[in-house]
Amino acid sequence: MKVLIAGMGLIGGSICKALHAYTDHGVYGWNRSPQTAQRALEEHVIDGIVQEDCSGFDMIIVCLYPENVREWVKAHVGTMSEGTIVIDVSGVKTDLPEEMHKLCEMHGVHYLSTHPMAGKEKAGYAVSDEDLYQGANFIMTPLPETPKYVIAQVKNVAHQIGFRRFVITTPEMHDRMIAYTSQLAHVVSSSYVESPVIELESGFSGGSFHDMTRIATMNEDMWTQLFMENRVSLLMELDILMKNLGEYRKALADADEEQIYKLIRQGRLRKEQNLENRRNAPSVIDLTEKELTPT
Amino acid sequence: MKVLIAGMGLIGGSICKALHAYTDHGVYGWNRSPQTAQRALEEHVIDGIVQEDCSGFDMIIVCLYPENVREWVKAHVGTMSEGTIVIDVSGVKTDLPEEMHKLCEMHGVHYLSTHPMAGKEKAGYAVSDEDLYQGANFIMTPLPETPKYVIAQVKNVAHQIGFRRFVITTPEMHDRMIAYTSQLAHVVSSSYVESPVIELESGFSGGSFHDMTRIATMNEDMWTQLFMENRVSLLMELDILMKNLGEYRKALADADEEQIYKLIRQGRLRKEQNLENRRNAPSVIDLTEKELTPT
Repeated sequence: MKVLIAGMGLIGGSICKALHAYTDHGVYGWNRSPQTAQRALEEHVIDGIVQEDCSGFDMIIVCLYPENVREWVKAHVGTMSEGTIVIDVSGVKTDLPEEMHKLCEMHGVHYLSTHPMAGKEKAGYAVSDEDLYQGANFIMTPLPETPKYVIAQVKNVAHQIGFRRFVITTPEMHDRMIAYTSQLAHVVSSSYVESPVIELESGFSGGSFHDMTRIATMNEDMWTQLFMENRVSLLMELDILMKNLGEYRKALADADEEQIYKLIRQGRLRKEQNLENRRNAPSVIDLTEKELTPT
Repeated sequence: MKVLIAGMGLIGGSICKALHAYTDHGVYGWNRSPQTAQRALEEHVIDGIVQEDCSGFDMIIVCLYPENVREWVKAHVGTMSEGTIVIDVSGVKTDLPEEMHKLCEMHGVHYLSTHPMAGKEKAGYAVSDEDLYQGANFIMTPLPETPKYVIAQVKNVAHQIGFRRFVITTPEMHDRMIAYTSQLAHVVSSSYVESPVIELESGFSGGSFHDMTRIATMNEDMWTQLFMENRVSLLMELDILMKNLGEYRKALADADEEQIYKLIRQGRLRKEQNLENRRNAPSVIDLTEKELTPT
């Protein structure tokens, strides 16, 4: 297969490196700043650089910020060959999948929106890694019109570069779940570092502080976009968390030992159930028919 | 040296194993349920079991829950040899160091309260590990009366079993800092798992969700004690966190892109400064003279 990666930051760069390391596909790169693509070429991570002409590719993986995906696909879809599969890796879906599908359809090109659940607390090609996706989750949000073989082909490539669990869901459920599993965690981490006593933290912490604050280094350009696009779901999850923290607050203020015990125990049981669910989860999870519990 | 470890759960068991693996000290164990001590003896992790008589030891490390430390030391101090150094590893200090110091002093025994900053999300001898302390932080909260050579000797043993950074501070500052670096993280983790959408989490998460919820499996018996004993400091830190989450909440509710950007950036800079501080921290941090910034 001949694959083009547009946008060679942490995610795109890691896809290039993984395709190069683990597959026989031809790997080509497009990047806004040409130095990065040039570096990847010199490192033999890609086989060639694409400037404008996107013809002749079987798959095109657009690894740009959500706002830039629309713009890039609009600018390049005219040059793509019929039957090409275009995918994005955006952290928020909203109406991107539908918009892009409509646009691509007119050019005989397939579109599938995806979300590789892997990252690092730093961005950029320099920290990209051929093993970033080993054992990770891969989410796909097809539309009812998306042909099954398109999903199968994308899943196949994702499997080749290391992904081991695949979720097929709707754009709406993706955004709701991601607000909880990813965006809320970033808000918490970013808020956590704002205590004035952080200046004395060295020496006082074990793994918990580190885990809690690792992702506070998120980059503000990308995450502002993600939070803004998904703010309704994120607000919903933030309110749930603040309510739960409020229960701890009340129990502590009341010195209510029994209630503190109850809250800790309840959290432990929920987490143990969660770990159990993860252990038992199948390698392909199809949630396209599943309704979210209203909250 | 001849060392007795009283209480052979995760922390005590790991100390036994590390002393056995990395030093030539004689290692003895006391445990409430005799099976665990017996198992450790059979595994050659300890050289002998102590029932009641605690004489002849250079150092006694009490690895029990805070409430049980008082009780155990009271019951056994009468049998200890003069000059023995007794330490505890409690996660909250309050007036424990002073109380125990007074008691031990009457028997010619030294007391030093410490806090090894290492743990796991599970408890018990079965998960103890000789390498639990490699590279970890070790906090000591001496009183003004504590002889310097006692601190030096405890630090030396801690170094032998893997600790690499040492903090000397007051019980008050310990409790205030630990509320932030450890206890608040546990409250957040426990609250985080209470969203109803957690049931669908499998497949939707990367490292962030895992990091954020790992310690929600804390055991309610120990942590209720820790939270109760340190509830004033913990409440203070919880309020700071909730205020900061509230700022994100407002910015999201107002769709205030500029403010979201500002908050993310501010958090990133704080975390980067924190990482910088950690890199530059000396191997021994003496905070006994340091005042906490009022908040």
